[in-house]
Amino acid sequence: MKTIVSTDIREIMKACQRPQIESKDLSALIEDVFQKVEMLGDSALFEYTQRYDGVKLKTFAQNTSEIEGAHNAIGSDLKSSIDKAYGNIIKFHKSQIIASSKIETSPGVLCWQENRPIERIGIYIPGGTAPLFSTVLMLAGPAQLAGCKEIILCTPPDNNGNINPAILYAANLTGVTQVFKVGGAQAIAALTFGTESIPAVYKIFGPGNQYVTAAKVKAQQFGLAIDMPAGPSELMVLADESADLSFVASDLLSQAEHGIDSQVICVVSALSQAEELEKLLEDQLKNLPRKKIARLALDNSSIIVCDDSERRLQIVNSYAPEHLILAVDNYNELIPKIFNAGSVFLGNYSPESAGDYASGTNHTLPTSGAAKAFSGVNMDAFIKKITFQEISAEGLKDLGSVIEVMAEAEDLLAHKNAVTIRLKQLSK
Amino acid sequence: MKTIVSTDIREIMKACQRPQIESKDLSALIEDVFQKVEMLGDSALFEYTQRYDGVKLKTFAQNTSEIEGAHNAIGSDLKSSIDKAYGNIIKFHKSQIIASSKIETSPGVLCWQENRPIERIGIYIPGGTAPLFSTVLMLAGPAQLAGCKEIILCTPPDNNGNINPAILYAANLTGVTQVFKVGGAQAIAALTFGTESIPAVYKIFGPGNQYVTAAKVKAQQFGLAIDMPAGPSELMVLADESADLSFVASDLLSQAEHGIDSQVICVVSALSQAEELEKLLEDQLKNLPRKKIARLALDNSSIIVCDDSERRLQIVNSYAPEHLILAVDNYNELIPKIFNAGSVFLGNYSPESAGDYASGTNHTLPTSGAAKAFSGVNMDAFIKKITFQEISAEGLKDLGSVIEVMAEAEDLLAHKNAVTIRLKQLSK
Repeated sequence: MKTIVSTDIREIMKACQRPQIESKDLSALIEDVFQKVEMLGDSALFEYTQRYDGVKLKTFAQNTSEIEGAHNAIGSDLKSSIDKAYGNIIKFHKSQIIASSKIETSPGVLCWQENRPIERIGIYIPGGTAPLFSTVLMLAGPAQLAGCKEIILCTPPDNNGNINPAILYAANLTGVTQVFKVGGAQAIAALTFGTESIPAVYKIFGPGNQYVTAAKVKAQQFGLAIDMPAGPSELMVLADESADLSFVASDLLSQAEHGIDSQVICVVSALSQAEELEKLLEDQLKNLPRKKIARLALDNSSIIVCDDSERRLQIVNSYAPEHLILAVDNYNELIPKIFNAGSVFLGNYSPESAGDYASGTNHTLPTSGAAKAFSGVNMDAFIKKITFQEISAEGLKDLGSVIEVMAEAEDLLAHKNAVTIRLKQLSK
Repeated sequence: MKTIVSTDIREIMKACQRPQIESKDLSALIEDVFQKVEMLGDSALFEYTQRYDGVKLKTFAQNTSEIEGAHNAIGSDLKSSIDKAYGNIIKFHKSQIIASSKIETSPGVLCWQENRPIERIGIYIPGGTAPLFSTVLMLAGPAQLAGCKEIILCTPPDNNGNINPAILYAANLTGVTQVFKVGGAQAIAALTFGTESIPAVYKIFGPGNQYVTAAKVKAQQFGLAIDMPAGPSELMVLADESADLSFVASDLLSQAEHGIDSQVICVVSALSQAEELEKLLEDQLKNLPRKKIARLALDNSSIIVCDDSERRLQIVNSYAPEHLILAVDNYNELIPKIFNAGSVFLGNYSPESAGDYASGTNHTLPTSGAAKAFSGVNMDAFIKKITFQEISAEGLKDLGSVIEVMAEAEDLLAHKNAVTIRLKQLSK
């Protein structure tokens, strides 16, 4: 990590620049995948699965008995841990469901919102070496709670054609209605158009590599909603003298192990802290299985030495981190001044990994500064809020002329007439 | 309008197909506009404004005195109508702001959400013959209420370089911080990158023609958020014997006058109603200034005769209308069965134009079936919900092993270590 000692915000933000992702132009490739899947359906999917996942499947649908039996295929420790995390996620997300109340905006004019689940959603879970069952909990759990009728999960099979039982166990727990063994951009295309096997959905959730991400952006062109734009994961830590720097180092490394394009930024108060932190990072790094990845991520990363409290907040809000740890004494004073962040962890005993797995908050969060405009995934992501209005005859008599005047001023006379014709009948 | 007598859902939904928009491929054009505005800033905007709006401006910024003095430039009837509508909009949207509560998901683990306004937003208001000041109320009003610090409004000038005073009056009322005389795709590019005059924003709201819409989609590629995908406006009316068909005809025409690509669908119970409705439409159409537009929109439109109550609901939920009028006796029974719609109007005295202008609900709504996954604009559109978590030492002792087990099962050992290092220190 490079260390910057500065109070100059331009210099600091330059040191915090996110690594430029070499964005290969994938548009032609993705266009091709979408066309083939739209035209050929399952047969295109079989071909892609053989090519990219190295396995010749006879069917994409994961059989139900294996899903229901997955609890026998994982250890009891893992099973009870998943159960506990699931309980916390449900508890926290349940608190986000707010009943609507009817508002009388003017006499006889009642307006309100009602929540309705998105009926059919798709969840993408990446393959690779590690089975991301935690993401199943974070996406299918709230969807189940929202009442989404169909929760379709796509994930690539291993080269024996299997899906990791921890993913299946989490899927069963969260009420996933169907699991399909298909990955990559072709899975996103299948969820967009539907195929013989896989139903088309209205919204697609979940992380993925650059192909999956590009495919989700493409799906938007066909009217689908997606959870959010995805980018490399990142963490900012604000530390003062009260911070335990060995904890801070462990948090920075937990983020850095995600990928070589991850970034971690630590803002400390004194140069001596920066020096100690560097040493602790080196020490802890040695023992990590993913140390090569973590080291490359640290090359993208900075320690900022800045003691000015206003400037420190400016750094946070300008960077708009996906994850923010406030390893400071006075975090309660800072909370109202945090404007741009995905998820915030307070004090010495709230590591990011708590939120990644088990505390109950969601781990699907806005990256790359998107926290300036986007929330992380929460219950809102699985529902629509429909507005209703009920106007009585008296209500329309009272408000009618306002509508007539405004419609006329916008040259929309048929809009005006819809009120006039009613008022005429009422005055009879 | 064509009349379909059927209970066959496929046949019915075929008659409800939305008009295919001839989507010229605008991507090369939009790409060019974005490149020029990014490279040349204001000078590109001056050139585009001269070319497309026919006016040579010296500055884009609307001077403040004209904004503040706009109340003198519009009639007192219009002024008080705008004031009344604004009050209702604020009242309804205020009811959507819900204070967060802290949840103890497990002992010593506190999680909550806090709302934060999006700091800088852009609002696009189309030009053309009619001044859409109502859309200023619908977008800037809630933004002001949310506490957005900067609300930037862009709208094309007329060929004298002026903006309609009703738009300026609404902008002043809703706390718009700056008004710029620039329209089209170039306005969206300016809000995306920023220029010498116009600040870059984090989210862009507002309707527009196909160029503006394509530009908003493009802006997403640069990480900006947008309100929602936009398409032609539409209305579905569900009518039974209790419906006053002259009211229904006026509502259908109020939607049809929007544009030749608008669509209206009316589901009635009996063929005699369809016949009467056709007659009423012809009668009312004669007197409308925009009758040419409305007639072409009616050519895209259908009356469905269907008496089966389950089938009628299926039509609504499959079509997922932007606007839905339930001109039926038993609307309270139907409400829980409406799953896909933008805004719903209940009974004989709730015309769509009430919601378009003054009842308090928002008129920026999902079109083209997007109501299956998207809400209309509401307070959520102007805020982010940031999650916070505060875990005590005891809390981490209780939950720590769950996190350790899950992190290890996902092969993320640094994630595990962030907990282990804390638990070790606590057990000392």
